[in-house]
Amino acid sequence: MIIVMKPEATQAEIDHIVETIVSLGLRPHISRGETRTIIGAIGDESPLRAKPLAGFPGVESVTEIQKPYKLASRQLRPEPTLINVNGVSVGGPQVHVIAGPCSVETREGAIEIAEAVRAAGATMLRGGAFKPRTSPYSFQGLGEEGLKILAEARERTGLPIVTEVMDPRQVELVEQYADVLQIGARNVQNFNLLKEVGLSAKPVFLKRGLSTTLQEFLMSAEYVMSQGNPQVILCERGIRTFETAMRHTLDIAAVAWLKAESHLPVFIDPSHAAGLYRWVDSLARAAVAAGADGLMIEVHPRPEEALSDGAQALIPSRFRSLMQELRPIAEAIGRSL
Amino acid sequence: MIIVMKPEATQAEIDHIVETIVSLGLRPHISRGETRTIIGAIGDESPLRAKPLAGFPGVESVTEIQKPYKLASRQLRPEPTLINVNGVSVGGPQVHVIAGPCSVETREGAIEIAEAVRAAGATMLRGGAFKPRTSPYSFQGLGEEGLKILAEARERTGLPIVTEVMDPRQVELVEQYADVLQIGARNVQNFNLLKEVGLSAKPVFLKRGLSTTLQEFLMSAEYVMSQGNPQVILCERGIRTFETAMRHTLDIAAVAWLKAESHLPVFIDPSHAAGLYRWVDSLARAAVAAGADGLMIEVHPRPEEALSDGAQALIPSRFRSLMQELRPIAEAIGRSL
Amino acid sequence: MIIVMKPEATQAEIDHIVETIVSLGLRPHISRGETRTIIGAIGDESPLRAKPLAGFPGVESVTEIQKPYKLASRQLRPEPTLINVNGVSVGGPQVHVIAGPCSVETREGAIEIAEAVRAAGATMLRGGAFKPRTSPYSFQGLGEEGLKILAEARERTGLPIVTEVMDPRQVELVEQYADVLQIGARNVQNFNLLKEVGLSAKPVFLKRGLSTTLQEFLMSAEYVMSQGNPQVILCERGIRTFETAMRHTLDIAAVAWLKAESHLPVFIDPSHAAGLYRWVDSLARAAVAAGADGLMIEVHPRPEEALSDGAQALIPSRFRSLMQELRPIAEAIGRSL
Amino acid sequence: MIIVMKPEATQAEIDHIVETIVSLGLRPHISRGETRTIIGAIGDESPLRAKPLAGFPGVESVTEIQKPYKLASRQLRPEPTLINVNGVSVGGPQVHVIAGPCSVETREGAIEIAEAVRAAGATMLRGGAFKPRTSPYSFQGLGEEGLKILAEARERTGLPIVTEVMDPRQVELVEQYADVLQIGARNVQNFNLLKEVGLSAKPVFLKRGLSTTLQEFLMSAEYVMSQGNPQVILCERGIRTFETAMRHTLDIAAVAWLKAESHLPVFIDPSHAAGLYRWVDSLARAAVAAGADGLMIEVHPRPEEALSDGAQALIPSRFRSLMQELRPIAEAIGRSL
Repeated sequence: MIIVMKPEATQAEIDHIVETIVSLGLRPHISRGETRTIIGAIGDESPLRAKPLAGFPGVESVTEIQKPYKLASRQLRPEPTLINVNGVSVGGPQVHVIAGPCSVETREGAIEIAEAVRAAGATMLRGGAFKPRTSPYSFQGLGEEGLKILAEARERTGLPIVTEVMDPRQVELVEQYADVLQIGARNVQNFNLLKEVGLSAKPVFLKRGLSTTLQEFLMSAEYVMSQGNPQVILCERGIRTFETAMRHTLDIAAVAWLKAESHLPVFIDPSHAAGLYRWVDSLARAAVAAGADGLMIEVHPRPEEALSDGAQALIPSRFRSLMQELRPIAEAIGRSL
Repeated sequence: MIIVMKPEATQAEIDHIVETIVSLGLRPHISRGETRTIIGAIGDESPLRAKPLAGFPGVESVTEIQKPYKLASRQLRPEPTLINVNGVSVGGPQVHVIAGPCSVETREGAIEIAEAVRAAGATMLRGGAFKPRTSPYSFQGLGEEGLKILAEARERTGLPIVTEVMDPRQVELVEQYADVLQIGARNVQNFNLLKEVGLSAKPVFLKRGLSTTLQEFLMSAEYVMSQGNPQVILCERGIRTFETAMRHTLDIAAVAWLKAESHLPVFIDPSHAAGLYRWVDSLARAAVAAGADGLMIEVHPRPEEALSDGAQALIPSRFRSLMQELRPIAEAIGRSL
Repeated sequence: MIIVMKPEATQAEIDHIVETIVSLGLRPHISRGETRTIIGAIGDESPLRAKPLAGFPGVESVTEIQKPYKLASRQLRPEPTLINVNGVSVGGPQVHVIAGPCSVETREGAIEIAEAVRAAGATMLRGGAFKPRTSPYSFQGLGEEGLKILAEARERTGLPIVTEVMDPRQVELVEQYADVLQIGARNVQNFNLLKEVGLSAKPVFLKRGLSTTLQEFLMSAEYVMSQGNPQVILCERGIRTFETAMRHTLDIAAVAWLKAESHLPVFIDPSHAAGLYRWVDSLARAAVAAGADGLMIEVHPRPEEALSDGAQALIPSRFRSLMQELRPIAEAIGRSL
Repeated sequence: MIIVMKPEATQAEIDHIVETIVSLGLRPHISRGETRTIIGAIGDESPLRAKPLAGFPGVESVTEIQKPYKLASRQLRPEPTLINVNGVSVGGPQVHVIAGPCSVETREGAIEIAEAVRAAGATMLRGGAFKPRTSPYSFQGLGEEGLKILAEARERTGLPIVTEVMDPRQVELVEQYADVLQIGARNVQNFNLLKEVGLSAKPVFLKRGLSTTLQEFLMSAEYVMSQGNPQVILCERGIRTFETAMRHTLDIAAVAWLKAESHLPVFIDPSHAAGLYRWVDSLARAAVAAGADGLMIEVHPRPEEALSDGAQALIPSRFRSLMQELRPIAEAIGRSL
């Protein structure tokens, strides 16, 4: 950690910082410039992070040097993590597509979609049984009934299931059915929920929040991993900015940054970023070219009848064409899809 | 709801929209302009909101007319809601200040602070027993032990207690001790938690999230109210923008907007917006002048020893001076403090 | 335009809106809902836009229906605009890469880079002679000397020159040398400058500002076009958001949206978005896959000696590899590069 | 400047940084931590800022220590700068209000407004003769005719005139009439214009851009000051964020931060932040309480007829009431108005 003192800082103020550093087991390193004194703290920064140094007398600014995440960092584990989802290997050379409806609505519909997306090349099935909705008056999902339908769709198609869990009390139930536990964007800093899925044996699909910095995003992954579950898949799905032409702004640069900083697989969800089916193709192609390990895409055979987010769903035929467009792009960068 | 059709929309596409409107019990109203046809849907918009009209063929844009919140809206209840917190009336002419430490740390410390803030004029005590921290390696709060300390501080000072609940499973425990249940910024769209506190008999202190729009914020209040708990206090505490000079950007305009749109009391938390004690005074003065019903301010006698957020805590003497500065401002706009 | 009246709006307030609409030559269309009256204004919205209807008594909200841009809109001109830059056809099936140094620094350096980027497949040369710098103490460009060097580099390589003009007084000089006049992000709403380049016979390369909405961006193009110059190339180069992992957030969705709304060619500048050479490849690949008509990339043989933005410059060998990576992606989506 | 090396940085990479520092006349200071080496550069940072250190091999991050602004900084000049505008002293204990129409429209109208705002206590008159408008089809101002009208209004009322200059070519003309040259938000980084007004003898009223950081804002002031004109008044007028409830988000914290970092006077323009007259009062009160040195407020006797921004204009009677509300707030914090 580096502490820059104000030009007018007194020697006593400098000494006070130095004593604090020493008392926490770090080694101070003082550098006197023309106007400011700079104090480096050498050693494990963790205890020092708990100290409110920015508020200490005489301090102008504080810069952390060490990354706050450990388990999620590429430094700890230089090789990419491969996550095995019922035989599907995520994070390796193959780009995976998770597809399916926003919400599970009916048994027939879910199976119809599962078969369609498998035929088009998807390797996992998505579908929400517990739905986080902005309005308390909106459809909130079928609950356990939805999980059972997903399990049946898996039986029929062999596709592993990715489904959301919203509440620590639901984890036990959801993991009985799901192959991957999804944490939605709004719960990316629901720390008790993160801890709970960190105790599960199932992989976690963690969506970035609307205003989560990439560093905070890795800290949320760290919460899961710190409980003993190393299988975290990261997913960028649009951040909130001033631009309203689309629902959110897809932060495509997150792919390169996250893959450089972390060993975890990185997915993109173009459907939620776009908010409208019309824009999904372009974003999906960009994601594969950028180097994403996978995509999550919403598909619905009759979007007008969808109980949630129908406007962003692709119909199966369009999804099929998109998959055909994506394959040569994956190959162009040395991957398969 | 108003549906604007594309210039090239066909009659069949227009008819399809009209039929959808009629089938949901609304009345269509068609207006043919020079280039575009516009369709109004007259009646209760709720069923129509579930339809993904933006994705229907021929549609250019969709504009909602009715507010999605009902119980929280000023239209439903033109008079301001007064919330009684153990005899303290929130939302009336008196501006209230909730003060105290970020986290409850020790029995002696909590009582010392409670007495100091009461002496300075605070009318409620804050203090966290369950702490949402970005890092899993940071201090996570004392839990029930912290709640007991708060209860003792209330006994000593008479100040009602405001404390955070992070998990639906904690609500039962926290409401045994707390006078007001706080929902933190990161949980503003943790809908299961909102529903749970909506079943409580205790008032809820709801903090706006870092990227929650004001309309979404009222929808979160609506979640609580829709479960039967009408006692919601709204609190703006800084949003996330490109500016990094302070930790967050205090959206001071939220005060006027929320008070115009809703009947619920509106507080400001200048401490979390600022992130550094130095900026708290100016923001607190602005909040009172803007018309806030109250403030939440962090106070700690020895900020350097605080286990969380020490840099933003005021020491008791500075808090006392601030309270003296705030009083004439409250009076200048016809209120007391 | 659609004017939604407040539930409590009086008949006189409604009449007043209707009279205003009629007085400006539009036709009113009234629709009375259960709680609100909605007034549509049918006809050319332009005169109505000048009226501050949102502030009229009884008005709750105002929604514009017609697009504020005309010349830039796809509606006016359904076919893509092809722009001929000294024989290079921009906006057609070929994806073009404009490459070169941030600033022109020396004659030898500029020619060395021009030859390197041409060899790698770039079809235009960039280089700044007039540099907008955040600090008045930074290198401000070589001015006319820089333009002369660029002209010499063109002579040697045949590459057309793209270079920035910052001031209406420079346009006459710059257009003597340049093939394309670049307007930088900070000048995207420097309306007098836009008008001035609108009078030029040279194509304009218009960069989106850091906080320009896509609609405002098209309005800036409209400024240029309204003066008689239809040759505008749009360029997204990163917007300012809360995320600081990269210098700016590349809004990759701008490609699809701008190409749907406008007939103008759309480029991406991954170098300025990234701020660091390490991230340029991933963003460039994403841009081509998303459907961009071209890229602008900074290249410098000795980035450490660059007088501006060296950290984001690719060295020629890396630029060459990138070009080789981009080609199959362009082909995968049916284009060439 | 502090350069943090990557854990895997080689000795040669470290040596290369050290040599660069030395070659630019600074003194290196090396500190070897457990995983990373940190290099401090002691001395004047300016030459080092031109070097793209972030892109040097082995570098993880670079942190600047010295402020990039000098003339604008409080460190250079601890006392607040007082600016004399025709006898009005800006930056001292009195809070000043600049009021008037968005655009100058007619001679009679301008004089009527000038007299009304003077009677209410405004000490300067605003009014635009050259108007930056998002659309090329909107009213662009009366030009010199507008300046003449403003001069006549000054003659009648004694109020000094604040008016915008958009183009370096207009400065000579505008300064013949104006007492203060306003630079609009969109031109805050129009560096050639900043340099031009930096050569003027008239004070400059500099508005922050929609996405200008506070540090960049001071750099824009520095541009003006570096040309020899020390009379710069800073004005915050709303930044662009995700929130759309108001036109922009007023960054009220800018007052405290700018006044701590700089000696220049700081104003707030609540009208442009709000975009609607209804919200102006609350924001104006907040600004005075926060410690602003002045306000800029739009006033129009018949907002419905205003040629620009009518929705945000206060009518004179409401402006008068607001002024009466503001006075006791100013007094509450020891100032006058």
